[in-house]
Amino acid sequence: MAIEQASLTEISDVFYRDVQSLGMSPLWRSTQPGPRDGVPAAPYQPCHWSWSDIERSLVRAAAIVKPGPEAERRALQLCNPGVAPSPSPTHTLTAAVQMVMPGEIAPSHRHTMAAIRFIIQGDGAITMVNGEPLSMTPGDLILTPGWCWHGHINRTEAPMIWMDGLDVPLVRSLKAGLYEGYPDELHPATKPIDHSVSRYGSGHLRPVWEQTSTKISPMLKFPWAQTEQSLRDLAKVDSSPFDDVAMQYTNPSTGGHVLPTMGCWMQLLRPEAHTRAHRHSTCHVYHVFRGSGSTIVDGVQIDWKQGDFFALPPDCWHEHLNRSSSEPAFLFSTNDLPVFESLGLYREDAYAERDGHQEVVASYAARYGDSRN
Amino acid sequence: MAIEQASLTEISDVFYRDVQSLGMSPLWRSTQPGPRDGVPAAPYQPCHWSWSDIERSLVRAAAIVKPGPEAERRALQLCNPGVAPSPSPTHTLTAAVQMVMPGEIAPSHRHTMAAIRFIIQGDGAITMVNGEPLSMTPGDLILTPGWCWHGHINRTEAPMIWMDGLDVPLVRSLKAGLYEGYPDELHPATKPIDHSVSRYGSGHLRPVWEQTSTKISPMLKFPWAQTEQSLRDLAKVDSSPFDDVAMQYTNPSTGGHVLPTMGCWMQLLRPEAHTRAHRHSTCHVYHVFRGSGSTIVDGVQIDWKQGDFFALPPDCWHEHLNRSSSEPAFLFSTNDLPVFESLGLYREDAYAERDGHQEVVASYAARYGDSRN
Amino acid sequence: MAIEQASLTEISDVFYRDVQSLGMSPLWRSTQPGPRDGVPAAPYQPCHWSWSDIERSLVRAAAIVKPGPEAERRALQLCNPGVAPSPSPTHTLTAAVQMVMPGEIAPSHRHTMAAIRFIIQGDGAITMVNGEPLSMTPGDLILTPGWCWHGHINRTEAPMIWMDGLDVPLVRSLKAGLYEGYPDELHPATKPIDHSVSRYGSGHLRPVWEQTSTKISPMLKFPWAQTEQSLRDLAKVDSSPFDDVAMQYTNPSTGGHVLPTMGCWMQLLRPEAHTRAHRHSTCHVYHVFRGSGSTIVDGVQIDWKQGDFFALPPDCWHEHLNRSSSEPAFLFSTNDLPVFESLGLYREDAYAERDGHQEVVASYAARYGDSRN
Amino acid sequence: MAIEQASLTEISDVFYRDVQSLGMSPLWRSTQPGPRDGVPAAPYQPCHWSWSDIERSLVRAAAIVKPGPEAERRALQLCNPGVAPSPSPTHTLTAAVQMVMPGEIAPSHRHTMAAIRFIIQGDGAITMVNGEPLSMTPGDLILTPGWCWHGHINRTEAPMIWMDGLDVPLVRSLKAGLYEGYPDELHPATKPIDHSVSRYGSGHLRPVWEQTSTKISPMLKFPWAQTEQSLRDLAKVDSSPFDDVAMQYTNPSTGGHVLPTMGCWMQLLRPEAHTRAHRHSTCHVYHVFRGSGSTIVDGVQIDWKQGDFFALPPDCWHEHLNRSSSEPAFLFSTNDLPVFESLGLYREDAYAERDGHQEVVASYAARYGDSRN
Repeated sequence: MAIEQASLTEISDVFYRDVQSLGMSPLWRSTQPGPRDGVPAAPYQPCHWSWSDIERSLVRAAAIVKPGPEAERRALQLCNPGVAPSPSPTHTLTAAVQMVMPGEIAPSHRHTMAAIRFIIQGDGAITMVNGEPLSMTPGDLILTPGWCWHGHINRTEAPMIWMDGLDVPLVRSLKAGLYEGYPDELHPATKPIDHSVSRYGSGHLRPVWEQTSTKISPMLKFPWAQTEQSLRDLAKVDSSPFDDVAMQYTNPSTGGHVLPTMGCWMQLLRPEAHTRAHRHSTCHVYHVFRGSGSTIVDGVQIDWKQGDFFALPPDCWHEHLNRSSSEPAFLFSTNDLPVFESLGLYREDAYAERDGHQEVVASYAARYGDSRN
Repeated sequence: MAIEQASLTEISDVFYRDVQSLGMSPLWRSTQPGPRDGVPAAPYQPCHWSWSDIERSLVRAAAIVKPGPEAERRALQLCNPGVAPSPSPTHTLTAAVQMVMPGEIAPSHRHTMAAIRFIIQGDGAITMVNGEPLSMTPGDLILTPGWCWHGHINRTEAPMIWMDGLDVPLVRSLKAGLYEGYPDELHPATKPIDHSVSRYGSGHLRPVWEQTSTKISPMLKFPWAQTEQSLRDLAKVDSSPFDDVAMQYTNPSTGGHVLPTMGCWMQLLRPEAHTRAHRHSTCHVYHVFRGSGSTIVDGVQIDWKQGDFFALPPDCWHEHLNRSSSEPAFLFSTNDLPVFESLGLYREDAYAERDGHQEVVASYAARYGDSRN
Repeated sequence: MAIEQASLTEISDVFYRDVQSLGMSPLWRSTQPGPRDGVPAAPYQPCHWSWSDIERSLVRAAAIVKPGPEAERRALQLCNPGVAPSPSPTHTLTAAVQMVMPGEIAPSHRHTMAAIRFIIQGDGAITMVNGEPLSMTPGDLILTPGWCWHGHINRTEAPMIWMDGLDVPLVRSLKAGLYEGYPDELHPATKPIDHSVSRYGSGHLRPVWEQTSTKISPMLKFPWAQTEQSLRDLAKVDSSPFDDVAMQYTNPSTGGHVLPTMGCWMQLLRPEAHTRAHRHSTCHVYHVFRGSGSTIVDGVQIDWKQGDFFALPPDCWHEHLNRSSSEPAFLFSTNDLPVFESLGLYREDAYAERDGHQEVVASYAARYGDSRN
Repeated sequence: MAIEQASLTEISDVFYRDVQSLGMSPLWRSTQPGPRDGVPAAPYQPCHWSWSDIERSLVRAAAIVKPGPEAERRALQLCNPGVAPSPSPTHTLTAAVQMVMPGEIAPSHRHTMAAIRFIIQGDGAITMVNGEPLSMTPGDLILTPGWCWHGHINRTEAPMIWMDGLDVPLVRSLKAGLYEGYPDELHPATKPIDHSVSRYGSGHLRPVWEQTSTKISPMLKFPWAQTEQSLRDLAKVDSSPFDDVAMQYTNPSTGGHVLPTMGCWMQLLRPEAHTRAHRHSTCHVYHVFRGSGSTIVDGVQIDWKQGDFFALPPDCWHEHLNRSSSEPAFLFSTNDLPVFESLGLYREDAYAERDGHQEVVASYAARYGDSRN
C-alpha cells in the first residue's frame, strides 16, 4: 500500500515534470482567486503623499533637471510602496506631479497611453494638444487622449504645477504601449486657443455640423469655474451617501466618460460631511484640490490636506470626512471605471455594519510607516 | 378592333369596380411621388407671422379668454394658410404663442405629445413639469417631454409670453395622441426650483450616481445666458456655410437631441452674414429672438424682425441674411431632425448654382399675400 | 347685461375672424385627443381580405395589365374601407399582393419608402436589390430598403405571388417620399445570387472584415426553412400570453429590427392556442401563411384561413385563436414598432377582465359588412 | 569643474534617494515604450503545442487525477515558455484542454472570469451554465460568461475533450478575479436542454418579448453544423486577404462580440490558400479543428495539423497557409478584440514588402526549441 502510494507519487512527479517540459501545466494545481471577502491583500496598498513633500521635491528637481530632449518631463511619479519599484499608485493608473518653470518647454511627444492634467498652481501656461493650445488655470481638467501630440510651454513669470494622470499600467499590461518623440521642440498650433472649449464649452449645445459621437471627448478642457459651479449647484439638490456631492466629467458627444480608459471625478465634501463606507472593483487616485479631511480605508485613517494625493486600491472599504465645519473640501480623482464598465467587471457593495461606518484601527503612519521619517 | 378595345375597356372597368368593392385598389393606377426635383409643391407653404400681429392679438385675447378649466391655454396657434384650417405651420410641428397674465394659472395636464417653450417676454413665471418648478427668463428653452404633467403660473407683475412648440401633427399622424387633464389646478411641486439644471446645468459633468442615458433629456431648462455664450464662443472659431453659427441643444445624457421627436437649434447670424442655400427633408419653425434680416425660400424673400416667426417646409431651398452691419441676429428654431435621423430619412443638398445664392423672384407678400391687408 | 354679453360675443367673433385672417387660431377652441379609453374610433378600422377574393382578382388582373413601363407592378393594394379611398390597411403601412407571370419583368425603380416581400406562391423568381439577385420561395422574407434599386423577374414556368409591405403612408405623412424610375428594364446583377445570405445567413457569425452596424439589415433575405425551425424551436421552450410563439426578424448587425421604419414578425399559434387580449399603440398587417383560426378585435371576430390578410389598427384589443386541434397556424406580419420605439411612443396594456378574453359581440361581416356580398 | 560635476552628481544622488524614500520616482529616468517598429521582443513569444503531446498527456492525467472536490478540473493549461511559469499562452488569454471521462462530473463553480469551450472530441456530455444544460458535439462553441455557475458531466460511454479559453490574465491584471465553489456537486438544471439555442439559434429572429440587448450573448451555444455552413457560404462570395474566409461569432442581441472580454473566430483556409501578412495589437490563440498547414510568425514557420494549438502574441507579423490542395483547414481562435475595441487601442498594419509575404528565416523548432526533444 505504502509502496503503491509512493509509486503513484513518483508517477505523478514524472508526469508533472513531463507536461511542464511540453509547455503545459495542470490546472488542478493552480490557485483560484477567492471569493470577494477572502481576496488576499493586494500588493497595491492604499497610499498617501503629502503636498509639502511633493512641493519640496519639485523645487529640488528644478535644480537638477530641465525639460528638454534628455529629460522630457520634470515630473515626479507617485509610487505605491507596496509594489516597489512600481512607478504607479494603482495597478491601472499612474499619477505624477509636473513642474514647468518660466520660459521652459516640455517638448512634444505622443503615446498610445491617454493622459489628463489637473492644474494645481500657476496660471496661463499652455498645453498644446494636436495643434490646439489649451491655457491652464488651477482646477482646470485638460485631456490629452492617446496618440495625440502634446507638449507644454510656460511663458508666464511663475512656475506651473499640475497633476498628470495616465493609464500607463493598464495599457502596458495590454502590451499596447507605443511612444513617439516629436522631431522638433513643440508641435505647432493650428487652432485658436481653447478651440474645443469654444465649440462645446459654455452650455449643452453642439455645432449642428458636428454630429459624430466618439468615445474620446471632443472637448479637451473643463474649466474650473464651471466645475465648481456644477458642484455647488448639485449640492443644493442631491448627494450620494458614499461620495457626498460627486460628479463625473462627461464627454459632450456621448454623455459618458471623457476617455475610454480613464474616468475623472470632482467631489465636494460639504463641511462636516462623513460619508458611509462602500467598496468597488475600481480604483481611484485622489488629489486634494481644496480643504482638509480624512479617508478611512479598510480601517486605516488617512488624513489629508490641500495639495495631498492619496490612492485607493480596488475592493477596499472607504469613507470620507471633511473635518472643517465651515469650508467645503474639493477632491479631484481619476479612476478606471470606463474599463470596468466596458468589460462588465464593475461590482460595488455597501458596508452594512455599524451604520455604514468602519472602526478606525490604525493611522496611516502607524500601519504603513510615514515615508517622511 | 375598336370593338375589342371597347370590350377590354369594359372588362377593365368592371374589374376596377369589383376590386374596389372587395377593398382593394390597383397599384398601377396609383401615382408615385416624383424624384426630388419634381416634388409637387407641398400644400405646406413657407409662412411668416409678424410680431406686431401676434402681440396685438394676444392683448385682444386677454380680454376674451382666461386660462382655466374651460380654456386651458391662452395660446394663439400659428397656422399654415396653405393647409387651412390646419393649426400648424408644418406637417410635423406646431407653434403657438402663449400669454399668461399676472396672477393667472394655466392648469396642469399631460399628453403624449412633447412640447418645448421658448421664453419671449416677462421674467420669473413658473412652468411646473412633473413636480419640478422651472423659472422662465427670455431666451430660456424649457422642455415638457411627452406624458409629463405640466402647468404654468405667473406670480409676477407683468405678462409672460413664450413660444410653444409641439410635435402634435407627427404624433397625431401616428395616432399616438393621448391627453389627460389634471383633476386639480396645478400639479404640485415636489422638487426645488430648477432642480434638473442644478444636476446637469453648469458644466459638462453628471452626478456619479446617475449613469442612465435616456432619449429624453434629464435637464429640462437651457438658460439663455449659457446659450448666448456658447454661440459667441463658437462664432470665434467656426461656422456653417448654410446656417452660420448654429448649435443644436443637446441631451446631456447622450449628447444627442433633447427629445426623440423634436430638435431645437439656436442660430447666430453675424452682422452682414449671407449664407448659401441648401435644402433638406426636415422642416423648421423659426422665432426671431433678436435682430432682423431675411430668409429667401425657393426664391421668395421673407423679411423678419425681432419677435417674428417663420416656417420652412421640407425640401425648400433656403438661405439667411442678417441685414444689420453691427448687430447679430439670433434665431431659435424647432425641427423634426430626430425623427428623420432615427428613421433614416434625412437628405440634404447644397444649392449648386449662382455661387450658392438663389435669385429673389418675389417678396413674401407678393407671393403669398400679406395677411395683414 | 344681455347687451354686454352680446357685445362680448360680438367682440369675440370679430377677434376669431381677425386672427384667422392673420394665420392664427385660438388653441382653446381646439379639441384635445382623449385619454386612451376615450380614444374616438379611428377611421382605420380592423380589416379582413380573403385569399379567394385576392387570388381571383389577380387572375383577372393578369388579363388586363402587364408589368412594364406603363404599369410598373401588377399588384393589388389592400385598402381600408374605413378610410376610402386610402390605399392602405393602416395609417402607417401598406400591403399589396403582387403577381408576376412566367416570362414577365417588373422593371426596376427605387423610392425612399422601404419595402418587404413575403413570398406566397411560386418558386424561383428573382428580386434584384441593388445588384443582388434574391431567389424567392414561399415563406421567405425579402427586404428592399429605401432608395435601393429593385425589380422582379420570373423565369420560371409558374406564376409568382407575394405580399408587398411598405411604409408608404408613414413616409408620405413625413413628406419624405421620392421615387425614381430606372432608365432600363432591370437594374443589372453585380453580385452572386443570395449574396447577403451567404455572408450572414447560416449562423450567428459575421465576416471579420464587416464590423459596421447599420439600422438597415445587411442581410436581405430570411429563408423560410430557418424561420420555421426557429419557431418550432422556440415553441419547445417559451411563448407569449398575447402572441403565443412569436418572433421578430432581426438585423444581424444590431440584433434589432430589420428596417428603421418597419418591423416583421412571424408567429406560430399552436393547435388550439387561444391567447389573451392586449392592445398597443402600434399596428400590424397580418398574412395567414398557413392554418386557420380567428382574431377577436374589439369584440369583433375575424375568421381567417390560409392566404387571407387582416389588419389591426392601433389601440384595439385583440386576441388570437388557432381553431385546429392538430395543425399549427403561421401568421406573418408587418408593423410600425421601430418607429414607435425610436420616438418613445410605444404603449401597451393587457386586457384585465374576463381572464384576459373579450366577449365576442359581432362577426366581422355583421359589423363591417362582407365585401363579397 | 570636475568638482562641480561631482558635486552635482552627489546632489542628484541624494535627491533620487530622498524621493524614493518619499514614495516618488523621477519620470525622466523611466523608459518609454518605443514606437511600434522598435517594440522590444515581448516575453510572450509565439507558441505551438502538438495534439499528440496534449492527447498523451491527457491520457496520463486520467490515471493521476479525477475531477471532484480536490481537483475541480482535469485540464492541461497551455503555457508560454517565454514567460515561465505563466500558465497562459498570451498576456490576456488562457487556453487549456480538458478531459472528462465517462461517468465523471467536473463540479460546479463560478468566477468573474469568462470562459468559452470549443468541443474537440466526444459527443453528448453536458455543460451546465446557470441551470441550462448544453450538450456538446465537436465543433460546437459554448459560452460560460463571468459569474455563471457552471459544471460538466459526462454520461456518455466515451471521453469528452474540449478546449477551455478564458480571460484570466486580463481579469487578474485588473484585480477583478473572484471565485466561488458551489456547495454541492452540480448546480441543477432549471431549463430544458439547449434552451438558449431554442430561443435564438435557427435563424435571425428573436422572441418578441425579449428586446433587451446585453454585452453578453444570451445564446450560449453555437452548433458546428451552422458554423461550418456559414463558412462554406461565405467562401462562395468573399474572403479577407489576411485571414481568408474568417468569421466572428456574434451576440444575437447586438450583432457584436459574444462576450465583452473575449472574441471568438472560426476561419476556413481554402485548399492552397496563402494569406498576406499583417499585424495587430490584439492576440489570438488558435486550435486547428481540421486540416493542416503553416503559420509564419515574424519569419518563423509554425507547422500545424489537426488538434494542434498555437498562439500569436500582439504585434507579430503573421500569415497562414493551407498545405492541402484538396481539403479546407478550419481554425478556431479566441482573441482579445472586444477589449481593444472598447478601449480604443486596436491598431493594424499590412505587411508592405515582398507582395505581403514574409521571408521564412527559421522553423519553430529551430527558433524556440522543440519541447518534445
